[in-house]
Amino acid sequence: MKGRNLRAAIHVCAVFATWLAALMLVPALADLYYGSPDWIVFAVSSAAIAALAVIVAAATRGIRPAYSTRFAFMLVNLLWLTFAVAGAVPFVESSLQLSVADAFFESMSGITTTGSTVIQGLDDLPPGLLLWRSILQWVGGLGVIALGLFVLPYLKIGGSSVIRLESSDRYERPFSRLSTFAASILGIYLASTLICALLYAMTGMTGFDAVNHAMTTVSTGGFSTHDDSFAHFPGLATQWVAIVFMLIGATPFTALVVLTLRGRVDLFRDNQVVVMLAYSLGLSALVAVYLDVTRTEDLAPGLEHAVFNIVSLITTTGFANYDYLQWGPFAIALVFMATFMGGCSGSTAGGVKTYRWIALYGIMRRALDRFVYPNAVASVRSGRDTVDEETLDIVLLFFTAFILVWSLLTVALTLAGTDFLTALSGALTALANVGPGLGPVIGPAGNFAPLTDAAKWLLSFAMLLGRLEIFTVLVLLSPAFWRE
Amino acid sequence: MKGRNLRAAIHVCAVFATWLAALMLVPALADLYYGSPDWIVFAVSSAAIAALAVIVAAATRGIRPAYSTRFAFMLVNLLWLTFAVAGAVPFVESSLQLSVADAFFESMSGITTTGSTVIQGLDDLPPGLLLWRSILQWVGGLGVIALGLFVLPYLKIGGSSVIRLESSDRYERPFSRLSTFAASILGIYLASTLICALLYAMTGMTGFDAVNHAMTTVSTGGFSTHDDSFAHFPGLATQWVAIVFMLIGATPFTALVVLTLRGRVDLFRDNQVVVMLAYSLGLSALVAVYLDVTRTEDLAPGLEHAVFNIVSLITTTGFANYDYLQWGPFAIALVFMATFMGGCSGSTAGGVKTYRWIALYGIMRRALDRFVYPNAVASVRSGRDTVDEETLDIVLLFFTAFILVWSLLTVALTLAGTDFLTALSGALTALANVGPGLGPVIGPAGNFAPLTDAAKWLLSFAMLLGRLEIFTVLVLLSPAFWRE
Repeated sequence: MKGRNLRAAIHVCAVFATWLAALMLVPALADLYYGSPDWIVFAVSSAAIAALAVIVAAATRGIRPAYSTRFAFMLVNLLWLTFAVAGAVPFVESSLQLSVADAFFESMSGITTTGSTVIQGLDDLPPGLLLWRSILQWVGGLGVIALGLFVLPYLKIGGSSVIRLESSDRYERPFSRLSTFAASILGIYLASTLICALLYAMTGMTGFDAVNHAMTTVSTGGFSTHDDSFAHFPGLATQWVAIVFMLIGATPFTALVVLTLRGRVDLFRDNQVVVMLAYSLGLSALVAVYLDVTRTEDLAPGLEHAVFNIVSLITTTGFANYDYLQWGPFAIALVFMATFMGGCSGSTAGGVKTYRWIALYGIMRRALDRFVYPNAVASVRSGRDTVDEETLDIVLLFFTAFILVWSLLTVALTLAGTDFLTALSGALTALANVGPGLGPVIGPAGNFAPLTDAAKWLLSFAMLLGRLEIFTVLVLLSPAFWRE
Repeated sequence: MKGRNLRAAIHVCAVFATWLAALMLVPALADLYYGSPDWIVFAVSSAAIAALAVIVAAATRGIRPAYSTRFAFMLVNLLWLTFAVAGAVPFVESSLQLSVADAFFESMSGITTTGSTVIQGLDDLPPGLLLWRSILQWVGGLGVIALGLFVLPYLKIGGSSVIRLESSDRYERPFSRLSTFAASILGIYLASTLICALLYAMTGMTGFDAVNHAMTTVSTGGFSTHDDSFAHFPGLATQWVAIVFMLIGATPFTALVVLTLRGRVDLFRDNQVVVMLAYSLGLSALVAVYLDVTRTEDLAPGLEHAVFNIVSLITTTGFANYDYLQWGPFAIALVFMATFMGGCSGSTAGGVKTYRWIALYGIMRRALDRFVYPNAVASVRSGRDTVDEETLDIVLLFFTAFILVWSLLTVALTLAGTDFLTALSGALTALANVGPGLGPVIGPAGNFAPLTDAAKWLLSFAMLLGRLEIFTVLVLLSPAFWRE
């Protein structure tokens, strides 16, 4: 039974790997077009991965898994690992010649839409490699939307949008068939990316930069084609396009589908979206006022810098247009908190996520009431909805697990040779799938290259943990999972 | 009704304040004996506080409160505040002439048995002030044992020892009357302090140092009479006396009573004690091996330094015999984690506390099982006991509240002018009632004096929050509490 499930899961992964192999032809063609010899690397990687995948798929075909939560847990883990491993191949083989640890880190950072990078000198990189990084994030973003909509609710871990879609009167089953719904999601994701790319190009980016940044904006990934990230594009219009599309990427795609195809603005009646916008604006305003009061920057440019970087962190994108660690302790503390926050469920964003903050706020308020009125019966609400008790339990469990795993990763990272602040913020930024950390090494002006291989493996694992909402990975480490 | 409760609570506080005023005669006598002019300060403070307390007590006498959780919450907060305010008076008026913020900080740090200090030049201080700091911690330690045994379980916040005492067969109601039981606790506390002082004196301390350190060891407070804390007493025997009595201070006093008066070693069948000893030893061993491997110190002296400082942090005492921040990132990370841990409930220790870690471990294991077997019925166990579901809920709530409050305090501290690391570790060390933080300012070799007044008020508030297990204070901030 267990062996059968594993083989069935491997089969699905092999099928998906052929698609990733096909996508490798895009950077191959780009390198061919721009005259970079790396086109051969991508072509050969594509062929090799495709061949291997087809063989594996054939060898494992015809096995029907026992559809169970165990199968789903196993599949999700294997799928993300497969993508990370397959995605790393071109990095090792290309003219960059990354080490295995570096290549895996970069690929995992891509597919989990984290956006931390070990590559220095992005501006001089051949176009194929840049494009491949962006494609990994774009695919990773799509993957996590699917995960949040179709898998995590089934596993009772998080991401409630599909449940709401099917059971609440708010979105009223907009589509009778799941495949139609999935196609609409894909359509919206594609359309957002295209519009974002167009707007980037119109506001001053080259076509190549526009396409790459659009893919890494809508997926809230944060890979850039330039070492100085969005500081490279000083135009105010470009910055605001990025801000808007990072926020779109962090919005539940279910709501976007309903908005676009039905023209209904349920979007702003979704408490998640309102709360996310509220704390984005709140933190940005605090930073801007602080910059003004401390005479670091005037209010207008300060506000723009504050909004851009805070939204970038909250949506877990990780672009930077300023070395915000120069802003002083209060801004650094707010930046650190923003790294936790996260966007909405059913989006491409990571972090603790908005609906969990709403739930935690309600849980704490209720707890205080209950200490005074122990017998009071009170439900926790999000906007006009009641949050059910099972979700509340899992929110508390998730938050606790997040903190505990973060602590253990911090300790492990210091053992792997990083200083304490780098370890603490590195574990956090990886777990929240954000990108930059604090301190001179991995801050917005830094790079993950100087870390040891051990630290890179640990951070890669942390990104996977964070992307799969921790429990999906931890379950595999529990003896109960492997018991017959 | 509310006004009546408040007046009844003030009455109790006034009565307790007369006792504190009486205790001020001890440093007065000491200063008189050693010839320090500060004896007048203590005598006048004592008289003034006693007079005021008697007037207030008389004015509020004869009011029977409605015994309710609200009354208990109000009383506990007022009691600790009264002690902190009254305890601060001698610091302002004495030859030290501390500012109000400094004096309140020092007094709060004493009464909450935190042990952070703003006083530099302890070695040259008149004996009365040193003795007063130690007495505050000793009284604070006794207060928190009483709180954990008699109040918090009733408020359903934590500290389960009395419940266990009355309902389980383990301790078999050792005393029929509560007052006998309270007297035994006081007796054990006094006896531990005396034995500790004796052993300190026998292993090389002066009588004065022995008495002071005994009071701040058994109360897991951590105030010293020397700027260099336990580095002042290099003798190995003295160090080990401190280690043993810090651990005794972090042990449930109920178990100590049963052990002493009944000769039963239930102590080591209490899972809390075993787990606390296990993680104290585990972390110490990790640090010692790390120091050996990195060639910072040889195994033997390294182990002694590791055990002393780790036990000091875990028991939330806060003595230091080495500037452990020189030990390198891995040791710093472990020191940071040790600052969280805490001792047993029903003891003088703070922090997250052992029984919560036991519960959190069980909760996480069960959660992972449940993701695989959603319908499995499983209880969380601590040793041979089953932890009831209400306790589990409150443990998760407490841990979450701890992290959230810590985050907010960190942000507030950076606004009050401290750097990020000082804010992060300062908020933690205050909330866990430990003492030293990380970094050059408030680390084991530093001092809290350079912080701004705003930061000192915030940290004083954090100490109170931590000592009263957060919810006792937060409840007062909830509108429900003040509703009729």
